[in-house]
Amino acid sequence: MQHEDQSGVEQWGRFDVTLRGPEEGNPFLDVELWAEFTHESGAIRVSGFYAGGGTYSVRFMPPAQGAWRYRTQSNVRELDSITGGFTCVAPSKENHGPVRVVDPYHFAYADGTPFHPVGTTCYVWNLQGDALEEQTLETLRHAPFNKIRFSVFPKRYVFNLNEPPSYPFPGEVNRDRVVPLAPFASQPQPPPDVWDFTRFNGRYFDHLEQRIADLQELGVEADLILFHPYDSGAWGFDQMPHEVNVRYLRYVVARLAAFRNVWWSFANEYDLLLNFTIEAWDAYFQLVQECDAFSHLRSIHNGMAFYDHGKAWVTHCSVQHHDLTRVARWQRQYGKPVVVDECGYEGNIEYGWGNLSAEELVRRFWIGFVSGGYVGHGETYWNDDEVLWWSKGGKLHGQSVPRIEFLRRVIDGVPGAGLVPLLPLGFSDFASVIEIGEFLRSLDRDTWPFADGGLDAEAAGRSGSDYCLFYFGTHQPLWRTLNLGQADFTVDVIDTWNMTVTRWAEHTSGQIRVALPGKPYQAIRIERAR
Amino acid sequence: MQHEDQSGVEQWGRFDVTLRGPEEGNPFLDVELWAEFTHESGAIRVSGFYAGGGTYSVRFMPPAQGAWRYRTQSNVRELDSITGGFTCVAPSKENHGPVRVVDPYHFAYADGTPFHPVGTTCYVWNLQGDALEEQTLETLRHAPFNKIRFSVFPKRYVFNLNEPPSYPFPGEVNRDRVVPLAPFASQPQPPPDVWDFTRFNGRYFDHLEQRIADLQELGVEADLILFHPYDSGAWGFDQMPHEVNVRYLRYVVARLAAFRNVWWSFANEYDLLLNFTIEAWDAYFQLVQECDAFSHLRSIHNGMAFYDHGKAWVTHCSVQHHDLTRVARWQRQYGKPVVVDECGYEGNIEYGWGNLSAEELVRRFWIGFVSGGYVGHGETYWNDDEVLWWSKGGKLHGQSVPRIEFLRRVIDGVPGAGLVPLLPLGFSDFASVIEIGEFLRSLDRDTWPFADGGLDAEAAGRSGSDYCLFYFGTHQPLWRTLNLGQADFTVDVIDTWNMTVTRWAEHTSGQIRVALPGKPYQAIRIERAR
Repeated sequence: MQHEDQSGVEQWGRFDVTLRGPEEGNPFLDVELWAEFTHESGAIRVSGFYAGGGTYSVRFMPPAQGAWRYRTQSNVRELDSITGGFTCVAPSKENHGPVRVVDPYHFAYADGTPFHPVGTTCYVWNLQGDALEEQTLETLRHAPFNKIRFSVFPKRYVFNLNEPPSYPFPGEVNRDRVVPLAPFASQPQPPPDVWDFTRFNGRYFDHLEQRIADLQELGVEADLILFHPYDSGAWGFDQMPHEVNVRYLRYVVARLAAFRNVWWSFANEYDLLLNFTIEAWDAYFQLVQECDAFSHLRSIHNGMAFYDHGKAWVTHCSVQHHDLTRVARWQRQYGKPVVVDECGYEGNIEYGWGNLSAEELVRRFWIGFVSGGYVGHGETYWNDDEVLWWSKGGKLHGQSVPRIEFLRRVIDGVPGAGLVPLLPLGFSDFASVIEIGEFLRSLDRDTWPFADGGLDAEAAGRSGSDYCLFYFGTHQPLWRTLNLGQADFTVDVIDTWNMTVTRWAEHTSGQIRVALPGKPYQAIRIERAR
Repeated sequence: MQHEDQSGVEQWGRFDVTLRGPEEGNPFLDVELWAEFTHESGAIRVSGFYAGGGTYSVRFMPPAQGAWRYRTQSNVRELDSITGGFTCVAPSKENHGPVRVVDPYHFAYADGTPFHPVGTTCYVWNLQGDALEEQTLETLRHAPFNKIRFSVFPKRYVFNLNEPPSYPFPGEVNRDRVVPLAPFASQPQPPPDVWDFTRFNGRYFDHLEQRIADLQELGVEADLILFHPYDSGAWGFDQMPHEVNVRYLRYVVARLAAFRNVWWSFANEYDLLLNFTIEAWDAYFQLVQECDAFSHLRSIHNGMAFYDHGKAWVTHCSVQHHDLTRVARWQRQYGKPVVVDECGYEGNIEYGWGNLSAEELVRRFWIGFVSGGYVGHGETYWNDDEVLWWSKGGKLHGQSVPRIEFLRRVIDGVPGAGLVPLLPLGFSDFASVIEIGEFLRSLDRDTWPFADGGLDAEAAGRSGSDYCLFYFGTHQPLWRTLNLGQADFTVDVIDTWNMTVTRWAEHTSGQIRVALPGKPYQAIRIERAR
């Protein structure tokens, strides 16, 4: 993997210092290398890594334009005290920098452009060989997703029994153990099962970087899963010693942190990784927080119980849960953005997590987004090839994607950073009989013109006093009465399933009675006239 | 209201002791009357009541066949020490006695016949005049409901602004107060607003009794709401003094407890009756428990927070909640049957509680019933006459009722007292990340053959090791793998929306892979071959 043109490095682009150094011994263990990058605004210290074949790199993502100088430090003389510099130029049009938390429940790129994550999950799309991987990229080019969750490590799970093309560590075949779930009959040879955890397979990470760069070109954030439990004894990457995990995290950060579209997802279903303690997760978060000079987003995804997203090193909640009406509760509990990366997938396989109707997935998306959260997609339609989008990528077959694209356009039209949940006051919607009183007390009724509106939609959110979105889900009112107060508003009726927006009124105010079609999946949008 | 033929009183029928007594003064306050009924099995003491016009009654529901004797007691000589007797005969075919709690999560009639409540709500159908009331009865004759919730007191609420034909207390018009929400223009005269709370209007209660008897003839339990908050200042029956409430409860019990189909619902949305303390509710429960010699079922329905259904005087949970997946949790919490009397109504009015699609209401019914609970219906389709079933009765217009009838046939086919919830193990279904572990521990895996089945349906319940029902709701698997163990089972696929039952296999066992149509609202039923 080559860094970008040294003579015209963009802000939030990549700059590589590439050096020759020792090949003998084990450079992964023996050689320490880092560099300090300085700019009129300050200094940033970045770890380097051994790229193999006697090549070393220090990779940098300049956060500011102008002149940068660097100086290396190493315990090897030929890598030490090497200096250089480059000029960082303005970002190109599609480069908005890395995504940060704002507001505190929303996201924006470093240049201030709002970012509303509309994610999908393809756990190991990057380990399927070029033909399928390029098909996945082509699908993403035409899909509404601006974030994708996938794994550094290979995965062994139902509908995902194939070996990856290569492995993150050098390995040998010395097979005298039983590997469950692996249909090796179709494999040319059994996979390695004795790993040298003191070295990394550079080509494996070269390929990963290529795919991250491909995603960056498509404007898609790479929500990179660092650990997961779906190993099933195939390779043991879920049961490595603590010091290997630490070395792995340092290596991954050194290689990947200069990609502006990287997010760190510490685990998928962390609580199913039975060898990891909470203390270990805490330590890994803190390690990455310390090593990653560019402060990419950090989260961890649950199986059942949530990790404490309130901990300082967690930037946002990554949630697996089916009940999107709880978004407001999680926001209040953790004080951070809520991204429900997994709420069930559209599909028809046997498992409850993978057989939602498109209508139900789209309903969950709307509840989550209207509540001011963000929701992730996945697709698990069975097919003869057993290429399911959720794990391998390929093509999309479902009906939810165009509706998610439609929703994304609606959400991208919300003024400000994003929506704040409005408590739906009706019976059908309150999330908890205990919490309703607490929430009612916290509701800012004085500054909100719709407070008298009988907000018993399935979800409702607002942005300041300028914008409000009510979503009715499986409710089918024939009308909705709202009190808009004095200001001048535009009112639209949105059919979220048929993807139509019907202007109901312009320049309206006071008490209104919005007519609705009396069928499910409708929304009302109210915007202050501009 | 006359008691039944004295010469052939059925077990669980009604026997009236009718007496002449003083008319002067205020018999409601001045006269005490009760009677002791004796049988070889023991003695039962029952309060009498003043029926008006110098007539007094003591009303009895014989719980056992054979010879009964009675002796009255009174503080008025002409009503005291009157004796008599009758012979109680076997119940007629449709008379199974009052409903009791069994199992502890289910119900049965006193003769042991299982009773699975499939209720509806028509709050004041009984105060709409004979034409509409008889239409309601005709509708019920052809509907699947075996329980109906309605109120003793009139109701003033949206879509229910009409005055009742009469009032429970004598009253006078002395109107110098403002009554909100009442469109009196259409009324021939304003309703009374000065009540004599020391007397009851016998004709009002005669009519109520007639309607309870009409329901009994249809085999419908009368879940009678004793207090409710929907008075809106119209009559003040929600704000009577404590001693009036006590007198009212004693009177209602004396008049109605001999109707075998009466259930006591202490309130609708008790927590919206802001003048009532928890201590008052406790006292009212205990009073009725003490006065009602026939121990009818006692419950109380919430607005937001639940009353503590664990208290000894509550026989079952009457719940308002939209999330039926919590039935198992409430069963464990309170140790009693769970009847979700209100989970939202099929309709299209403005309010979230009254505009569910038929599909969604039927889905909620299935989740609740399959979880071993019971769910109630209501219908709120807007129409020009503003006669909505949920409040006034009349005709049904929706699509849920035939599906509820279909579900009732399925539930009536469950062996034993009813279903016990099986934890759905998949992601999409677990109600709470905290409680899943607890529940898993409590699951009786050793005696349950389907324990390895991957039970991630939207709801699942079993009856012993003989019967299991999986409901998939908005999930749409193409197949489901189950391990039936050694025994011999019959497997059906049920389309709960299209109301079809398709035999998938007979005399099957071991690991099976049941094919499903890959669309929502399917269920699998597994029964041990008989």
